[in-house]
Amino acid sequence: MEKMASFVEYGPECEFPIENLPYGIFSTVDNQKPRPGVAIGDKVLDLSVVKGLFTGPLLSKNQHVFEQENLNALMGLGKSSWDECRQTLQRILSASESVLRDSPLCQSALVNQADVTMHLPAKIGDYTDFYSSIEHATNVGTMFRGKDNALMPNWKHLPVGYHGRASSVVVSGTPVRRPLGQSCPVEGQPPVFGPCKLLDIELEMAFFVGNGTALGEPIPIEKTADHIFGLVLMNDWSARDIQKWEYVPLGPFLAKNFATTISPWVVPLAALDPFKTANYSQVDPQPLPYLRHEDPFTFDIPLSVAIKPEDSSEETIICESNFKNMYWTMKQQLAHHTISGCNMNPGDLLASGTISGSDPKSYGSMLELSWRGTKPISLRDGSTRSFLRDGDQVIIRGHAQSKGYRVGFGECSGIILPALSHS
Amino acid sequence: MEKMASFVEYGPECEFPIENLPYGIFSTVDNQKPRPGVAIGDKVLDLSVVKGLFTGPLLSKNQHVFEQENLNALMGLGKSSWDECRQTLQRILSASESVLRDSPLCQSALVNQADVTMHLPAKIGDYTDFYSSIEHATNVGTMFRGKDNALMPNWKHLPVGYHGRASSVVVSGTPVRRPLGQSCPVEGQPPVFGPCKLLDIELEMAFFVGNGTALGEPIPIEKTADHIFGLVLMNDWSARDIQKWEYVPLGPFLAKNFATTISPWVVPLAALDPFKTANYSQVDPQPLPYLRHEDPFTFDIPLSVAIKPEDSSEETIICESNFKNMYWTMKQQLAHHTISGCNMNPGDLLASGTISGSDPKSYGSMLELSWRGTKPISLRDGSTRSFLRDGDQVIIRGHAQSKGYRVGFGECSGIILPALSHS
Ligand SMILES: [Ca+2]
Ligand SMILES: [Ca+2]
Ligand SMILES: [Mg+2]
Ligand SMILES: [Mg+2]
Ligand code: NI
Repeated sequence: MEKMASFVEYGPECEFPIENLPYGIFSTVDNQKPRPGVAIGDKVLDLSVVKGLFTGPLLSKNQHVFEQENLNALMGLGKSSWDECRQTLQRILSASESVLRDSPLCQSALVNQADVTMHLPAKIGDYTDFYSSIEHATNVGTMFRGKDNALMPNWKHLPVGYHGRASSVVVSGTPVRRPLGQSCPVEGQPPVFGPCKLLDIELEMAFFVGNGTALGEPIPIEKTADHIFGLVLMNDWSARDIQKWEYVPLGPFLAKNFATTISPWVVPLAALDPFKTANYSQVDPQPLPYLRHEDPFTFDIPLSVAIKPEDSSEETIICESNFKNMYWTMKQQLAHHTISGCNMNPGDLLASGTISGSDPKSYGSMLELSWRGTKPISLRDGSTRSFLRDGDQVIIRGHAQSKGYRVGFGECSGIILPALSHS
Repeated sequence: MEKMASFVEYGPECEFPIENLPYGIFSTVDNQKPRPGVAIGDKVLDLSVVKGLFTGPLLSKNQHVFEQENLNALMGLGKSSWDECRQTLQRILSASESVLRDSPLCQSALVNQADVTMHLPAKIGDYTDFYSSIEHATNVGTMFRGKDNALMPNWKHLPVGYHGRASSVVVSGTPVRRPLGQSCPVEGQPPVFGPCKLLDIELEMAFFVGNGTALGEPIPIEKTADHIFGLVLMNDWSARDIQKWEYVPLGPFLAKNFATTISPWVVPLAALDPFKTANYSQVDPQPLPYLRHEDPFTFDIPLSVAIKPEDSSEETIICESNFKNMYWTMKQQLAHHTISGCNMNPGDLLASGTISGSDPKSYGSMLELSWRGTKPISLRDGSTRSFLRDGDQVIIRGHAQSKGYRVGFGECSGIILPALSHS
């Protein structure tokens, strides 16, 4: 296949070439209504302006989805419509096609990314967080239960997950306030109240469910890919001291529900297709039949986490991992989540869980990187971190790299605000 | 205070007297658009028809809330508006007031409850389930960890809770399909796949959050009541065999997300005010200051659970409990849930957890009633139950009783459909 080219110009290191075309919701100073856009080069294509160009058999009847304040309506149309949408976008943005390039619409349709405000891409009905990196589960298990009991008996049989709080999922750039809560610093003693002392990150990716399902209808694993609209980067902020005290027996609650940050651009599953790689070997044990698939559905997406302290102009990369470290695939996660009959809606968000590799530099949380505070992380400004300080900015980045182009997500970042004062 | 009377007639055992006036969403054969209504006697007052009668200072500007397909907009207006709404309703429905009674609107405004279809009252953004009955937590803890370790160390310090699945909350009458899933019948052996064998109920109540809050802003306990719109009955269907295998370490997931049933009528908090009773004593330990309140916020609401087998015309009451059995109050639940800064939205649903009393007949789950299957429950048709069979209908009922009137919720019921066939 010949390399694609767009009339919008960009260099080889651009995260948003014509092979990517991620969707987001943006607004501008001139038009404060949030609306769908697509990133191309350093521009955003305003889909509400060019909606009339979607003249294919499916989207010609559904151009209203490009005027909504979220992507849920587009997500709900299903895979055939997403494919048609992407083909239309690649055509109208291509270097050889004049319909947009030479149109009077073109100037108002292409907005500088530097001038837009990004919003949450979807109204998230339900958010689920899995726990699908074997290195992460092993590390955390080793710290809390010792090496021999690190993995729970269920871990290799099913993608362990839990329901998270949808209301507090925020878009990159939203400040995150250090939570107040209970912790129990001395086992057997009464708990204490105050700001979280062990504020952590979790490097994750997440996918948006596209077309929904009815209650009582599992998604067979061979159909799961048709329900995956696209992916984002995610930081599942975690209050470790609150978590440790509260999580038995019903799981994490306040330790997670104060904020979860996602990157603004939803990269279509189709854009990640060239980056598929072999699945994690699952032979001992083999999963049950409803969780088996042979086709590769693991993705080579290098990821990094940086911290930039408040009074420093320099950031330090504290972690370099890769989405391909996942033991369970997104197909398996979705097949498992719905095997009970749990219904899915467009805009539901399903996250990977912390993505750690085998190299200690690839651990996806400070809990693991500092090994519970025993090995503080050195930053370039000379300070050290076991957990986050107020004013720290955490930036997650990631892009898949192919011959000649990148598929990126934009940054997933947040700054820690000090806790509220309390009595 | 003189007893109130309405021009709509009903007897002393009616669950929906003028002192109640619960809100719901209904549709009719003639008008299939779901819309807000209020139960009075055996009628539903169609609020979309009488919206022009809400002429108070707050609602006169917000009559559109009575034309929505859910109650979220009304919930979002806040307590002053709810109070004005209730005053208006009690006035226009009173025996001494002619504005509605003698209006040409009256006939179309009052619909027979027997002729309506009830819908989910709100679009539920997030659903949380607490675990706030000390008898239930003690019973379950005793079964799984023995009497001496029944309550976890955190239990009396905070209202333990977890995030549930919002998409699968359904209105009373919706059939519930027995879920498929993994369980591990023999510890140490591989798991097996198939229909849930230990399908259970959980007798709960739940409240809808009214006006929302911003991310990062806890609700102080003295303001929590202003955020509680009203209450429903709830059945938190639970797959015990799936739960046991999956729940460590992140909590229940598929064991709960196949369905959660609520009653159709949301009883305003104001209607329950006469039924306040003393809080559960919390002295050893006292809760932390952010969880302390002195005013009674426990409610005397008798509750029952009945099972009606498929081939029987007779139901058997298997449990009689009371909402007053709660250790933690709704104020404490809401203060705790938001202390981290977790934001609330109108329509969020917060459930009590299984409501068990000290009498074995008051246990709110079959797990407890049959003591893990060791004491099967006898039904009136001669059959026994440790857990639910296909075709069983489960009906939760509840009403508060005062001198001369009742405040009821309508039934919370569901029938078990057989599991899907599977390979
Ligand atoms: Ca996580
Ligand atoms: Ca429950
Ligand atoms: Mg989080
Ligand atoms: Mg449930
Ligand atoms: Ni949970």
